[in-house]
Amino acid sequence: MFAARLDRLTRYMEEKEFSAVAVNAGPTLTYLTGLHFHLMERPVAIVFTPGDDPIIILPELEQAKLARLPYGAKVYAYKESPAEWSGVFRAALAKLDLAGRKIGVEPGQLRLLEYEYLRSAIGDAFFTDGSAVFAALRAIKDTEEIANMRKAVKIAEAALEATLPMIKIGVAEKEIAGELFMQLIRQGSDTSLPFAPIVSGGPNGANPHAQPSLRQLAAGDLLVIDWGASCDGYMSDLTRTFAVGEIDAEERTIHAIVQQANAAGRAAGKPGGSCAAVDNATRRVIEEAGYGQYFTHRTGHGIGMECHEEPYMRGDNEQLLEMGMTYTVEPGIYLAGRNGVRIEDDVLVTADGAESLSTMTREIRIVG
Amino acid sequence: MFAARLDRLTRYMEEKEFSAVAVNAGPTLTYLTGLHFHLMERPVAIVFTPGDDPIIILPELEQAKLARLPYGAKVYAYKESPAEWSGVFRAALAKLDLAGRKIGVEPGQLRLLEYEYLRSAIGDAFFTDGSAVFAALRAIKDTEEIANMRKAVKIAEAALEATLPMIKIGVAEKEIAGELFMQLIRQGSDTSLPFAPIVSGGPNGANPHAQPSLRQLAAGDLLVIDWGASCDGYMSDLTRTFAVGEIDAEERTIHAIVQQANAAGRAAGKPGGSCAAVDNATRRVIEEAGYGQYFTHRTGHGIGMECHEEPYMRGDNEQLLEMGMTYTVEPGIYLAGRNGVRIEDDVLVTADGAESLSTMTREIRIVG
Repeated sequence: MFAARLDRLTRYMEEKEFSAVAVNAGPTLTYLTGLHFHLMERPVAIVFTPGDDPIIILPELEQAKLARLPYGAKVYAYKESPAEWSGVFRAALAKLDLAGRKIGVEPGQLRLLEYEYLRSAIGDAFFTDGSAVFAALRAIKDTEEIANMRKAVKIAEAALEATLPMIKIGVAEKEIAGELFMQLIRQGSDTSLPFAPIVSGGPNGANPHAQPSLRQLAAGDLLVIDWGASCDGYMSDLTRTFAVGEIDAEERTIHAIVQQANAAGRAAGKPGGSCAAVDNATRRVIEEAGYGQYFTHRTGHGIGMECHEEPYMRGDNEQLLEMGMTYTVEPGIYLAGRNGVRIEDDVLVTADGAESLSTMTREIRIVG
Repeated sequence: MFAARLDRLTRYMEEKEFSAVAVNAGPTLTYLTGLHFHLMERPVAIVFTPGDDPIIILPELEQAKLARLPYGAKVYAYKESPAEWSGVFRAALAKLDLAGRKIGVEPGQLRLLEYEYLRSAIGDAFFTDGSAVFAALRAIKDTEEIANMRKAVKIAEAALEATLPMIKIGVAEKEIAGELFMQLIRQGSDTSLPFAPIVSGGPNGANPHAQPSLRQLAAGDLLVIDWGASCDGYMSDLTRTFAVGEIDAEERTIHAIVQQANAAGRAAGKPGGSCAAVDNATRRVIEEAGYGQYFTHRTGHGIGMECHEEPYMRGDNEQLLEMGMTYTVEPGIYLAGRNGVRIEDDVLVTADGAESLSTMTREIRIVG
């Protein structure tokens, strides 16, 4: 599996004429090595060059992790004192002769910390945005990755089902979020969740990024729950909207519109279709129903080792979908000061269409 | 509180001759604004200049958060399409006339993503390492910060006490870690823990950064538990080592040595004392007992909004301690293939010494 990933990396590097790529601690490093490092005050970097073992620079304290590396590498470990780190980076990278060459890096992940160590060790190299390479590598999920994502979805669905019985009028958003969090762990999520659950009732639901508050659920609220689990480093990210007791006619209407938009978005994905087409599909339903101005965000985002990654489902993104890509479809309607609805699924592009990994009912359910 | 923080920032900027400082999403931004942003694909940046309102560049979607900003700011919000983001950064920063000036940034936090937007918007500015300024600001904790850290310690201690009854011979490290995790949340930790608990028994305890495994506790194990909680964004980070049933004489000995080293380290902190002195105090005890080569890491790290932050307790760090600083004291002995001991407390520098925020007994306790 890792051999295949490195082969694809090498191919992309040749296409882009990168003499090397340099990656710091984060999901791409984990994708390429199977190893986990935290972003800490001590820099960790790995440099891949075509046809040679990669070079790894890391703290001595973390060296034991390399026993699990699935291929050979040249290892340069440094001790506790930062004064020595520059020298170790130089010793590691001097022989590569990369001065004046193109080196792909990941601007959304690489910190100035690692960048400056790399730059001062390599000399006058041309560090360039390699995001497209890493995104292309990671966007197409392999069998094991898809299996983990399916599990992450199942865990999330089971956790929400286990939480529903305690959702009642008078219970605070924060209490529900806490219980859901514990249920996620109990159902088998990794302890590093993709994000803390969003539980927002009534007017709080009109803010797509609301944090759970002490507000207690009231009869007639719409209740937005946006939550996810993580399984062996792969994420799920779902949203369902509930009715707290009896809701009014407009609330029923906007829920039905979003449900239809979600279905249209899920149906719009296929190999060779575009990200824009997915966005257009959900947006058209909401616009035609007269609520276009209240759908204030893109339709979705890629999902995998990161909860938000490429490809992004935006109307201006003509990128084409390929089999094995995974992304969210999450249209919403937000009526400021009143309420909000969002329905979100995680979708996998198949040979001839798209499959939702999440199957929990999207019909409105009454809680409380 | 925020006014005082901004005043101190301005003073440090003048000292260092920074015309501005630029901060992206992360703890320093939260420290200076009270706002939380996640590091995502959408850049968030705030630029402070002495004597003027700061400039904030962020996604429209996040703009609602600014209602809580405790002072005025010039806000530049961008829409979903990345094609427009450069223009928004330029519009935000053009008038500052920072070309050729010194701008402090945070290399351990700032990504190339934000850096490139800032650089292309500002032109030929001299971006320079401002870590020392941010570290100095954040190292001295104010009353509210210390109160949060005390709570984070209490939550962690209560969670471990609640977990102890299930620790028995035959239970796997992972089960204990899962239970401890849930107890941390139940006792009131923020859901974003400082780190996933380390639970390592027998030979696994010899790896200071071990991940909980499926290994089951056996009679005679030393059991290292390294865990922490988070309270309103402030961290605790503690370690205790337990005996699983009867342990042998050497295990008793190394536990006693580490306990003594921990006490010496806690006693060594005071205003005007150095970080090196704290490290020397623990290390001397372990060296004099003949185990110096098995204490393979520094004595501790600053702790606050980040689990690892300045100041670092290393033998080569002559930085002086000041009242209000908080850091860990965590000596250990690691006997590869056999066992490990670590005892860690969180310490606050007071007017005339240092106080341990953690008070849970450091005597060896028998579990199982």
